[in-house]
Amino acid sequence: MRPWTRVHAPATIGNLGPGFDTLGAAVRGAGDEVHARTVGPRGVRVLQVLGVGAAGIPLDPTRNTASVAAAAVLEVIGSPRGLELRVLKGLPPGSGLGSSAASAAAGAVAAARALGERLPAEVLVACATRGEQAASGAWFADNTAAAVCGGVVLVASHEPLRLVRLGVIPGLAVALATPRTPLETRTSRSVLPAEVPLADVVHNMARTAQLVAAFARRDPRLLRGALEDRVAEPARAPLVPGFYQVKEAALSSGALGASLSGAGPTVFALCMGVSAARRAAGAMRAAFALAGVESDERAAPLAASGARVLGP
Amino acid sequence: MRPWTRVHAPATIGNLGPGFDTLGAAVRGAGDEVHARTVGPRGVRVLQVLGVGAAGIPLDPTRNTASVAAAAVLEVIGSPRGLELRVLKGLPPGSGLGSSAASAAAGAVAAARALGERLPAEVLVACATRGEQAASGAWFADNTAAAVCGGVVLVASHEPLRLVRLGVIPGLAVALATPRTPLETRTSRSVLPAEVPLADVVHNMARTAQLVAAFARRDPRLLRGALEDRVAEPARAPLVPGFYQVKEAALSSGALGASLSGAGPTVFALCMGVSAARRAAGAMRAAFALAGVESDERAAPLAASGARVLGP
Repeated sequence: MRPWTRVHAPATIGNLGPGFDTLGAAVRGAGDEVHARTVGPRGVRVLQVLGVGAAGIPLDPTRNTASVAAAAVLEVIGSPRGLELRVLKGLPPGSGLGSSAASAAAGAVAAARALGERLPAEVLVACATRGEQAASGAWFADNTAAAVCGGVVLVASHEPLRLVRLGVIPGLAVALATPRTPLETRTSRSVLPAEVPLADVVHNMARTAQLVAAFARRDPRLLRGALEDRVAEPARAPLVPGFYQVKEAALSSGALGASLSGAGPTVFALCMGVSAARRAAGAMRAAFALAGVESDERAAPLAASGARVLGP
Repeated sequence: MRPWTRVHAPATIGNLGPGFDTLGAAVRGAGDEVHARTVGPRGVRVLQVLGVGAAGIPLDPTRNTASVAAAAVLEVIGSPRGLELRVLKGLPPGSGLGSSAASAAAGAVAAARALGERLPAEVLVACATRGEQAASGAWFADNTAAAVCGGVVLVASHEPLRLVRLGVIPGLAVALATPRTPLETRTSRSVLPAEVPLADVVHNMARTAQLVAAFARRDPRLLRGALEDRVAEPARAPLVPGFYQVKEAALSSGALGASLSGAGPTVFALCMGVSAARRAAGAMRAAFALAGVESDERAAPLAASGARVLGP
């Protein structure tokens, strides 16, 4: 038997602040792993899904994000070979931490590696986004782009896919508080407004642009106020009991800003330094607890790199 | 009599591409001049308005953009003195070249200088924006910010006013074609959509962010596709006969992108190098002519600096 190619992809914060479907950020630490090996027959088979929330992840290769992404890679390469996959979930599904995107990104990168092909980041992200789409029903690349590339990534265009890699700001860290009750991305997308008042469009464009200026210049002072979102957050907040108290707790603890991570229910905050992020994360978990919501806290730097091959 | 303090402020492109009310850019060359001198009695008087389109500019100090801006400076400083102003219009009103903003910016800067006060850029822009508001009826700072600061400026927040100065990309030039029939900013704002479909919000956020990344990194390659606007341009294009042909002419001539300048009817294009901008401007004027619209063309670099004191 060929050896397994093992790839890790990190958690990601999608919809970073105001940047709905536009900005994603990778977080260092926990993530998903996908192991891939080539086999004779065409197509992709998912042998196993293990780890956090694995019971809810489909083995059906047309619905599993890792295998859909891997199949897209096979298609792009035009390979006559097939792939077998194992998926090790480190990120809870429905948490807003880019769990499906991490599997999809690791799936795409593992497939390309197992097949011995080097693909440009845009192609890997496009393949991973097909996987993401299988899970969410929608086409958005902010999580997959950050999971593949690392750092903060701007999806400047979805069709054709055009990415601007913005990297990280040294010292910048993130605090996360993840309620133990998951929220499906599909549900969270269904409450979004069909139309947005023009004043709110201007607000969100300006704040998204500010966020990009902060990262492009590596200037954390530009982050203050930059996470304020008037498009997705007000619509989704009611789905996350305690959200506003948790956000307020993060800001009171000194965070530069806070919002929902991806489709929620995780709330994230940006902080200078991991110890500030630890304080914010503790305050956020406590605020969730006061609202009767059990949650898990985490503090970590942003991840400068994305999906990486663990071996061989 | 005290000598006149003379200040020049440049033309500006407001609503830069997708950045409605968010991004402005200053253009080197023609602009407006405001001359100011202190007088005994409180308040601001406008003695004269000379130059392009002067006949249409009110002398009434509560409606003249330069004097409203100057009065705001007096108020900020808390000065017991008064000011007399002369306004020399170099920019045609209603052209989309930031004519009212140039007068307002020059008025604010001239007032502060005549009074011997150094004010932060944000304060000068806020004062100039009061002047702009007197002309347009709305509160937006993209033109005034660029006219005061120069380069490309992001209005990250209007309330409180927060600016990010993005400077210029060396070598980047702009082509302008200005129809001889003016378009009132009030009219051009009245056709804007009250609400914007979510997909177009994402589009405009992403392109505005791309534009900011291009300037923050001084990378002209990031400009391609970044000017595509789905919010204001589609609504305003019908007010500018020949707009789409003129835009197409600019792109065909090799411009990196093109859109309406401010509220129109001027069409601008971004180009690498002034000679490319000259080609684009010629193609744009010819396209306007084919649509039966007489226009004036211009090619110039972006202006790295904004309002400047000519003396004393």
